[in-house]
Amino acid sequence: MNSTFIYEVPTKIYFGEGQLENLASEIKKYGKRVLLTYGGGSIKKSGLYDEVHKVLKDQGIELFEFGGIEPNPRHTTVNAAIKLCKEKKIEVLLAVGGGSVIDATKFIGAGTFYNGDIWDIVTRKAPITNCLPIITILTLAATGSEMDAGGVITNLQTNDKIGNGHPSMLPKVSFLNPVNTYTVSAYQTACGSADILSHIFEVYFNMEPDLYMLDCISESLIKTVIKFAPIAIKEPNNYEARANLMWASSWAINGLIDGGKDQPWSCHSIEHELSAYYDITHGLGLAILTPRWMEYCLDERTVSKFYQFGVNVFDIDKSLPPMVVAKKAIALLSEFFFKTLGLKGTFKEIGIDESKFELMAAKACRGKTIKGFKPLKKEDIENIFKMCR
Amino acid sequence: MNSTFIYEVPTKIYFGEGQLENLASEIKKYGKRVLLTYGGGSIKKSGLYDEVHKVLKDQGIELFEFGGIEPNPRHTTVNAAIKLCKEKKIEVLLAVGGGSVIDATKFIGAGTFYNGDIWDIVTRKAPITNCLPIITILTLAATGSEMDAGGVITNLQTNDKIGNGHPSMLPKVSFLNPVNTYTVSAYQTACGSADILSHIFEVYFNMEPDLYMLDCISESLIKTVIKFAPIAIKEPNNYEARANLMWASSWAINGLIDGGKDQPWSCHSIEHELSAYYDITHGLGLAILTPRWMEYCLDERTVSKFYQFGVNVFDIDKSLPPMVVAKKAIALLSEFFFKTLGLKGTFKEIGIDESKFELMAAKACRGKTIKGFKPLKKEDIENIFKMCR
Repeated sequence: MNSTFIYEVPTKIYFGEGQLENLASEIKKYGKRVLLTYGGGSIKKSGLYDEVHKVLKDQGIELFEFGGIEPNPRHTTVNAAIKLCKEKKIEVLLAVGGGSVIDATKFIGAGTFYNGDIWDIVTRKAPITNCLPIITILTLAATGSEMDAGGVITNLQTNDKIGNGHPSMLPKVSFLNPVNTYTVSAYQTACGSADILSHIFEVYFNMEPDLYMLDCISESLIKTVIKFAPIAIKEPNNYEARANLMWASSWAINGLIDGGKDQPWSCHSIEHELSAYYDITHGLGLAILTPRWMEYCLDERTVSKFYQFGVNVFDIDKSLPPMVVAKKAIALLSEFFFKTLGLKGTFKEIGIDESKFELMAAKACRGKTIKGFKPLKKEDIENIFKMCR
Repeated sequence: MNSTFIYEVPTKIYFGEGQLENLASEIKKYGKRVLLTYGGGSIKKSGLYDEVHKVLKDQGIELFEFGGIEPNPRHTTVNAAIKLCKEKKIEVLLAVGGGSVIDATKFIGAGTFYNGDIWDIVTRKAPITNCLPIITILTLAATGSEMDAGGVITNLQTNDKIGNGHPSMLPKVSFLNPVNTYTVSAYQTACGSADILSHIFEVYFNMEPDLYMLDCISESLIKTVIKFAPIAIKEPNNYEARANLMWASSWAINGLIDGGKDQPWSCHSIEHELSAYYDITHGLGLAILTPRWMEYCLDERTVSKFYQFGVNVFDIDKSLPPMVVAKKAIALLSEFFFKTLGLKGTFKEIGIDESKFELMAAKACRGKTIKGFKPLKKEDIENIFKMCR
């Protein structure tokens, strides 16, 4: 099958230090009544909150704010912010934070054009028709939400974590200053890096024919994360490491590497159930699941892709038998997650027992099959969960 | 120095077969009075001209046309097309062709907003203030003009070939169907591939600090061209090869790989003089110049970059001494251009003698220094010319 796709990523990126001087002029292209959205207050500690206020002062911008957006952002929080947008006639959304803040802001923007519960939109009961213009200031290299058109929202009442998207939700402008990630903890840096890698893996590990060029670029991004995540953890203020992770996070998921391939996103589908039931950090769930999912997928049919991964990413001796290279590559990835990055490696260590395996597996595949690298039915997902115990 | 840059590439890309069904709707977003621009008529032979007319028929679009745009497009040709645009009140430009057609179309679009000779705009005597919206259908993988905001125009009266650009000249939409390059000759495929490689080299061979990620992506694009150009030459209808070359051409020069580095573009500056005086194919001139320029730049200060190039692109044994790897890499690149791609390897073979070396060298550096990978004065450029004899 010949590759056919549409690529369109108009987000304007200001990368590096000193770029916030352009914030006011960019905002004013879209409006003057601005809602600043943020999370638990880390931007107040880091000084970014004050910096934003400073550069927007005396610019004729009316700034409102909505803080307290949680990791795995809740639909109830989004509903509250939508109410504020409508009351204050907000024209532009300014999301300052990581993927949770930006994801929530996308649904705040879309929900402003809908009369009803945002959950209707998340669950596709109601269509997304439009979205307020969004400008982001990124503080965490992880989800790529700063340069893509999707987001994920959690409903803790129904234990659902569901993604949706629309071209209008793509940020107009994103400010990517690696310095704004210097304060990200070692743990969150590790989880963010696992998230970036997973975005690439979900596309890269695929039996559809690839454009060689995009496979090479995927490997470039994987190597970048593997090289710089440990450096960022050891030296939180290392600009080069933070810059590489930050720019890699955007390109892992903005559409370039897809090349028109079907992408069923196996690990993400499964992990969303873990986060929905146990409210764990998304990247941690992905790190625990990924090597087991790989082991489960590895067979004579898929071995060539793992061989390519091992040789090109981990520089494993290409003269070894493919299956040996494949197993070694998966082992090296486990070592990277659980030794180099120091993430916990089993469900037991993070307080997840077997009680919901069947339920989560059923929900992950929605009673059908995840048509991924290896098609996964409910039983397959349960088996993968068991491997994570 | 920390990397700081702005990245903004809003061009919408329709990649692959069967996408022209979207042409009418994309055009109508911008207007209904359309000027179709094209070159020497190869699109009539290939059937693309008829296909465009077919998909635009009965769509309420008034189609005018301007053919005969030459390789190394002339400013006089651009002036003639601008006159037509003004007479016919053209609203949208539809460029169907390779880099020459698209480059010329960019200046046609800009010149429509200027009263005077387009050469004023090319030479920066007059500013670019705006440009008609441009939609392209690409027929040659080479210049990347389909996804960047610049172009190059030739004045045969003054023997000048000069580039300029403006954000408004960035194509709104580009249709990249690899099938449209099946009819590109072996020679033009080779020249186009040399052009793509040169765009990457001009950024990659640079002593400013790089983002590792962008260096890896540059190497991905180089490897893609080296892998698929020979295949496209042997099997002109190989979709995979044509697709990889086509998409690589866009990403070689759309801004991603720059990462905010200063880019003096040494080989392009020098080659433009060759094309201006001898009207040779741009990619051929680049192929002849590039390995000599590399040899000339290679020293203790620059060897590390050539070593990286040799190891990562040509898979040369990394345990060899850096200077050995560097020389081997340059030799392999020469072999690629002059044996694998079959391009002529010396000035003598293409009818260029020494008579204009001094004149062209003086014009290339504009009496100053090209501050590239290795700073080049007039004498240096003459030396490089002598190496090409």
